[in-house]
Amino acid sequence: MSLDGLEKKKTIDLRQKHIGPSCKIFFSHDPIKIVKAKGQYMYDEKGQRYLDCINNVAHVGHCHPDVVKAGAEQMGLLNTNTRFLHDNLVLYAQRLQATLPDKLSVCYFVNSGAYHGHVSSLIDISPYKFHQLSDAEQSQFVHVAPSPDVYRGKYRADHPDAATAYADEVKDIIQKAHIKGHKIAAFIAESLQSCGGQVIPPVGYFQQVAEHVRKAGGVFIADEVQVGFGRVGSRFWAFQLQGDDFVPDIVTMGKPIGNGHPMSCVVTTREVAEAFMSSGMEYFNTFGGNPVSCAIGLAVLDVIEKEDLRGNALRVGQYLTNVLEKQKQKHPLIGDIRGRGLFVGVELVKDRVKLTPATAEAQEVIYELKEQHVLLSADGPHRNVLKFKPPLCFTTEDADLVVEKLDPILTGICLLAADVLRMRSEVLCCYFLHSRVGGSVRLEGKRFGKYRT
Amino acid sequence: MSLDGLEKKKTIDLRQKHIGPSCKIFFSHDPIKIVKAKGQYMYDEKGQRYLDCINNVAHVGHCHPDVVKAGAEQMGLLNTNTRFLHDNLVLYAQRLQATLPDKLSVCYFVNSGAYHGHVSSLIDISPYKFHQLSDAEQSQFVHVAPSPDVYRGKYRADHPDAATAYADEVKDIIQKAHIKGHKIAAFIAESLQSCGGQVIPPVGYFQQVAEHVRKAGGVFIADEVQVGFGRVGSRFWAFQLQGDDFVPDIVTMGKPIGNGHPMSCVVTTREVAEAFMSSGMEYFNTFGGNPVSCAIGLAVLDVIEKEDLRGNALRVGQYLTNVLEKQKQKHPLIGDIRGRGLFVGVELVKDRVKLTPATAEAQEVIYELKEQHVLLSADGPHRNVLKFKPPLCFTTEDADLVVEKLDPILTGICLLAADVLRMRSEVLCCYFLHSRVGGSVRLEGKRFGKYRT
Repeated sequence: MSLDGLEKKKTIDLRQKHIGPSCKIFFSHDPIKIVKAKGQYMYDEKGQRYLDCINNVAHVGHCHPDVVKAGAEQMGLLNTNTRFLHDNLVLYAQRLQATLPDKLSVCYFVNSGAYHGHVSSLIDISPYKFHQLSDAEQSQFVHVAPSPDVYRGKYRADHPDAATAYADEVKDIIQKAHIKGHKIAAFIAESLQSCGGQVIPPVGYFQQVAEHVRKAGGVFIADEVQVGFGRVGSRFWAFQLQGDDFVPDIVTMGKPIGNGHPMSCVVTTREVAEAFMSSGMEYFNTFGGNPVSCAIGLAVLDVIEKEDLRGNALRVGQYLTNVLEKQKQKHPLIGDIRGRGLFVGVELVKDRVKLTPATAEAQEVIYELKEQHVLLSADGPHRNVLKFKPPLCFTTEDADLVVEKLDPILTGICLLAADVLRMRSEVLCCYFLHSRVGGSVRLEGKRFGKYRT
Repeated sequence: MSLDGLEKKKTIDLRQKHIGPSCKIFFSHDPIKIVKAKGQYMYDEKGQRYLDCINNVAHVGHCHPDVVKAGAEQMGLLNTNTRFLHDNLVLYAQRLQATLPDKLSVCYFVNSGAYHGHVSSLIDISPYKFHQLSDAEQSQFVHVAPSPDVYRGKYRADHPDAATAYADEVKDIIQKAHIKGHKIAAFIAESLQSCGGQVIPPVGYFQQVAEHVRKAGGVFIADEVQVGFGRVGSRFWAFQLQGDDFVPDIVTMGKPIGNGHPMSCVVTTREVAEAFMSSGMEYFNTFGGNPVSCAIGLAVLDVIEKEDLRGNALRVGQYLTNVLEKQKQKHPLIGDIRGRGLFVGVELVKDRVKLTPATAEAQEVIYELKEQHVLLSADGPHRNVLKFKPPLCFTTEDADLVVEKLDPILTGICLLAADVLRMRSEVLCCYFLHSRVGGSVRLEGKRFGKYRT
């Protein structure tokens, strides 16, 4: 199925024929066909290697042999649902619990982290999703607090107490809801905002929000789907970066939990679990928590520990941040670099004072890096934040490689910007970016060739 | 992790500590610890074999070597999301399409069949779920049509045209909704009702319902999660039992699709896919349609074909129905036997005229069979339908074995019923049934021993 598979064009044709058109592909003008992967590298059908800076799901490295072995062995032995007793389920739950504060002790196993959802009730709570809908109205039961973004948000790095200021916004929302006669069920946030633009909330924010929410009768849900399992290096869970005095009531986990195997988990307190129980609704999930998923989950935890991947995330993440900081000194396009461990964002701006998002430029960087066999993505509300979230086996050499490729691209974009400015044609610029993106010719030749003629 | 695992008591203790109390287990008074499985057999920690009549997920047989091999090989090669091109995704979609009417050509891959759901928007459309909630109110946007059950339902086998009568009920609901100013979005039903009590809708019902629903602007969704992939034997999909003139607009698939691997799929028409596309909402799923899931899906389709499992389902299903019919002649407790292929229901009644559901008796049968190492379940609105949905490699010898065990149990229950009747104590009967269920002593000794003293 791999190296002697379908011709790429045939794969594309069949995909257009049989896969829903709402399913987007990376680099749609010239998508990549990946046939194998190992560690932090992916390989296309021609054997070309790509450095993978984006697959946070392949947490301990693509196709890690220990994880594959655990999954394959258990698949050959037993794979059934949790209506039967099985050691893997309870041993995994026990191991997972040991990484969490004591209070978070009850697990529910699922198959997917849901991306805050494809179903209406989950889309309702995700601005990232409901803003995509052309005819969307924000549900009257949902209130969106300002993103605690100290770079671009309402309260910034120069604010004396951004944590309190952002938490007070939540308090304010609660008060307004109460005035309208509404009650508060829950506050949900990623522990570090990922699609929201690699935003790191100021320390103390969650504690204060939790206090306000709990006072109103609600619970605090920390979403660790993208950022948990040691990615931040210094702690196992990103919410722990807020300090040991903060404990959520519910934690959602997904993506990295099974290194690619469909698996996810919700962990909560005994109190919340019993409240759910008292609703009378059974929770059953055909696949969730099956022996194969749990064997794989256990192997992932083993590898994180055995290979000190948290330590690696911390060291390499710091190294990556350092080399990117040097790029920031060189390229005015880089407005901010922020991160924890191997979760790093590089925010591109056209102007460091006005912070005008450099959206097209970020797309340009992504496409140019792809041409040079480095996979990176851009996200955030303005899609101007380069998003590093590689497998945790990423090395300092990998960091050097990205920056080595990134440097001339940023220089090129700077020159291009000056060029376009001279022509004062934004429309032409957009067309130009798109047409180039479709091709596969190297940056320099095509830019100045096609553009200046 | 298997034969030398935790002591059973320790497994139970850890489960109580770390797994949500809403997660129900089979035979909660004395649950089974299963450590391995092969084909249609499961084995507990002592090596005791159980005949599995219930795991419709292990469709081609537990741990089928071809499926395990396909999964293990692909896990070692690549497992990533569908934002990259991959042959497995498109080849699987193509193969799946070939089993369906031409119009159903566009696939969306997911990880779970959802059981009609754990999220509120899906619970809303599932009476099976929302009736479980103590404080549930039926959503005003949801209308529940009568189950097209010709044994116990509104229109029965003696009705001259039950299909039209049941379809007219849907037409009526649509008209009433229109009068209230509501519009119709969709009709959703299992192609054969599974948890609804192994109900087989009369031929022609779906065609007429589809006509009414489409006339009102809605679509017809056929849920094949429990009954698809050749289980019914004569056709690949259960909805096809209605005839070739019926084509749903959307088909949902899950459980058997990956033989236990978390995988599911929604297939629809180009028209519906484009309407979804025009909503502006992207569909992405971290795990859905990944190369491992699709490799496994392809292997499952191969095995169904190679081992002629549809043929086996038809032959063994017919044999099972025949031997059960003989039991019906012998035991008045059996009110109805119905099925297609290896999807067979045995409805227990206390009275063949009034059809009083023999709910406690059905539970009794299940528990007694378990003591004799046969796994069967009871379902339906009254939980009085014994539900056969074994792996498709089930044999005539397996069918004989179940019936051999079932026969004396049904005889025993009949004697017990007479006994209880004499004592006129329903409360005592319930207590008795429950207390015995908790023990593991064989039927005869305990019943007449404990009860008569």
